[in-house]
Amino acid sequence: MAPGSPGRNWTMNELKLNEQKLNKYFDHTLLKPEATPDQIDALCREAIEGAFYSVCVNSCYVPRVSKALSGSDVKTCAVVGFPLGACSTETKVFETKYVCREGAHEVDMVLNVGMLRAKEYDFVGNDISGVVKAAHDAGSKVKVILETCLLSNDEIVKACELSREAGADFVKTSTGFNSGGATVEDVKLMKETVGDALKVKASGGIRDLKTVIAMIQAGADRIGASAGVKIMEEAKQEGIATGRER
Amino acid sequence: MAPGSPGRNWTMNELKLNEQKLNKYFDHTLLKPEATPDQIDALCREAIEGAFYSVCVNSCYVPRVSKALSGSDVKTCAVVGFPLGACSTETKVFETKYVCREGAHEVDMVLNVGMLRAKEYDFVGNDISGVVKAAHDAGSKVKVILETCLLSNDEIVKACELSREAGADFVKTSTGFNSGGATVEDVKLMKETVGDALKVKASGGIRDLKTVIAMIQAGADRIGASAGVKIMEEAKQEGIATGRER
Repeated sequence: MAPGSPGRNWTMNELKLNEQKLNKYFDHTLLKPEATPDQIDALCREAIEGAFYSVCVNSCYVPRVSKALSGSDVKTCAVVGFPLGACSTETKVFETKYVCREGAHEVDMVLNVGMLRAKEYDFVGNDISGVVKAAHDAGSKVKVILETCLLSNDEIVKACELSREAGADFVKTSTGFNSGGATVEDVKLMKETVGDALKVKASGGIRDLKTVIAMIQAGADRIGASAGVKIMEEAKQEGIATGRER
Repeated sequence: MAPGSPGRNWTMNELKLNEQKLNKYFDHTLLKPEATPDQIDALCREAIEGAFYSVCVNSCYVPRVSKALSGSDVKTCAVVGFPLGACSTETKVFETKYVCREGAHEVDMVLNVGMLRAKEYDFVGNDISGVVKAAHDAGSKVKVILETCLLSNDEIVKACELSREAGADFVKTSTGFNSGGATVEDVKLMKETVGDALKVKASGGIRDLKTVIAMIQAGADRIGASAGVKIMEEAKQEGIATGRER
């Protein structure tokens, strides 16, 4: 079976992944505007139980999540300038400082898509580096969301280069709030562009194990999804089916 | 013909509206994340030519719009915490101060929908009043976007009451980025709730004159739309058809 068309009994082993590694790919995510505190609390419990990498939320919930996860290995991840990326740089930097002060280990910022498409690269680079500086000063990592569904391949490459130059830690495909999410093609292109200098996060529309595996095969180091619990259930069944060590 | 089922040759006169008044209902709006500086400049030229009430943009474009509109009667309007309303109150207040400093006369903030649905009314009220204080200190007005498509009728009423108590100037139906936009029913409910204490802005999915007229009949004092130029063309044709003074 060719890479890029992963099968259920092949890919977990091929990738040397088992449940206890696959779980650490997940940013367990709830970003809907109508999400309530109770739903956020449930998200945190699921993340602790599933030993996911992080819980990813809007900035109003960062203090709550940070407190709920304290004492666990699960990190707090906050989105910034989300989901349009069209707020002012000053606002993104302020929000970054806020979430880091409130306990965010990782900041997922949206770049300025309109300015990128207008080739205003100085603006886009400064927008990213402002956030990177604020986050790194606080010891936190930065993922730059490209919103790939709005970009050409050339624009994706340029966005990766600007993110690398600005010192970001990850590039990330999508917000999940626009016309499309992560694709294998975009993740491959991003990985080819950033190499080992940055990591790649695939997010948006990832709802099953098959898609997760395809993204990891394409080069994804992290997965953003709200369906992590269901996907790990699938993975457990997969693990049993392949008879690998548990 | 009954109110609520407006006809094309009836409603402009009935409402004592002509082109030179109807234009002042419009916040001429472009909020897409991929909007480029050139598109924003064109929006400003259209707004000046059409003598609309304001130009409404994301905060990264407020300095540009404020400059482009200087010397005209057209106001600058900025969205804040947009479109999810789920960033921290501190971030909304910061962004409000930023846009007001950069020339925004009006601030369209999104309330915290999740907290409203969880009946965390103190949080929602403080979120709104923080923005109101920052804007009013700068001499600017505040519209509170309810995102009515996510709310029950009871929640819409409560959101209007909280907005009134927080000292806001308008309640506004929608961001245009969620599952639904303005409806006649929601505008009527909002107008009934706020009475003359606040104004009402209808926005989201308003693309033709018939809908504009229906919203104004239902109680809307302001219309948010990207199709203002086309709608005013329709209005001109309407005006000619009814033979009223031009």
